[in-house]
Amino acid sequence: MIDDRTSRNLTWHGGLVSHERRADLMGQRGGVVWLTGLSGSGKSTLARALEDRLVGDRHAAYVLDGDNLRHGLNRDLGFTPEDRDENIRRVGEVAALMADAGLIVITAFISPYRAARQRAREAAGAAPFIEVYLDVSLDVCRRRDPKGLYAKAQAGRIGQFTGIDAPYEPPERPELVLDTSVRDVTECLELMYACLSRHGVLKARPSTERVPNA
Amino acid sequence: MIDDRTSRNLTWHGGLVSHERRADLMGQRGGVVWLTGLSGSGKSTLARALEDRLVGDRHAAYVLDGDNLRHGLNRDLGFTPEDRDENIRRVGEVAALMADAGLIVITAFISPYRAARQRAREAAGAAPFIEVYLDVSLDVCRRRDPKGLYAKAQAGRIGQFTGIDAPYEPPERPELVLDTSVRDVTECLELMYACLSRHGVLKARPSTERVPNA
Repeated sequence: MIDDRTSRNLTWHGGLVSHERRADLMGQRGGVVWLTGLSGSGKSTLARALEDRLVGDRHAAYVLDGDNLRHGLNRDLGFTPEDRDENIRRVGEVAALMADAGLIVITAFISPYRAARQRAREAAGAAPFIEVYLDVSLDVCRRRDPKGLYAKAQAGRIGQFTGIDAPYEPPERPELVLDTSVRDVTECLELMYACLSRHGVLKARPSTERVPNA
Repeated sequence: MIDDRTSRNLTWHGGLVSHERRADLMGQRGGVVWLTGLSGSGKSTLARALEDRLVGDRHAAYVLDGDNLRHGLNRDLGFTPEDRDENIRRVGEVAALMADAGLIVITAFISPYRAARQRAREAAGAAPFIEVYLDVSLDVCRRRDPKGLYAKAQAGRIGQFTGIDAPYEPPERPELVLDTSVRDVTECLELMYACLSRHGVLKARPSTERVPNA
């Protein structure tokens, strides 16, 4: 179905459109905002809030999360360790493609393993990769339990659940650490915006130039 | 690695950003331009030329092709019939995600089977899906043979090569048919632009409003 049949025949088509032209067009540099943390730490909420604010500010942003990808690209994957690893690998690769296309991609996955996050960072290549660690205690996450998953894990109805009977490896050098039990969404958004500017994804703009939220 | 452990627990996060807001932001409607045709029919050339012109006109566009995807997302796939089928399935799903993010995605794959193309169309959901059939004779493609693949197939060095010893199923109702042996790139671009306008991806604009190519 494709026209190259062995790795010998593969050639990279760099394309006619440079990253500079895309950045100029879109008023931003494509990049990946990789949220990581326990279930209930606030990944989906912050991802959607950041996307909403970015689009309101006329930036092209898009959230990838497990719920959505599991319905499409990753619908062939189950929940074995290998399949969960492949799930995260594909997320990293799709995020890299979207960042290459000029988008600010926000991913919301527990992604508990350092090696898997490192692989996603490497996939992004030259695009900024902003690892945001939602450092919220297990106690808080269990109390929130927005999807009732901790209760199910406690009851033994799901196994290998991160924080219960599977490990979470905290990032060693994340670009940003947020504790959503002490900061509200607005504060978190301000800190994420500042981080995106610091890493060249957003151009620093005086507030008078900012387009009001739509 | 993700926080949903059985399909029962999956919920779709529609997000806060509507398609209307994205379309307003980006001045276009996200969609998929699916080029299909034999090796040598001009898919990569037209895909890159269309991307270049769209970005010159300040549209957000991106090419997915086999060469690039095989280095990343699809690097785990080989060339068995199952793997080639999975390759095209993933392309369709990634194109759908990118179109959902507001991009004009251009794919350049032989994609010889109707069922696989139909599946990609279904993945795109409500986003416009523009199937462009590059209807170029096998004789012309073999004479062009830009990658020397027909020569290799003839020599028996690669098997199951579309047009030689594997079938190509022409689209029955493509949105556009182009014969690159009788039309040049400029003509093809005009016809593709008109088709994108007709299907609502681009707004029809008077030429005086058009931003000159960068």
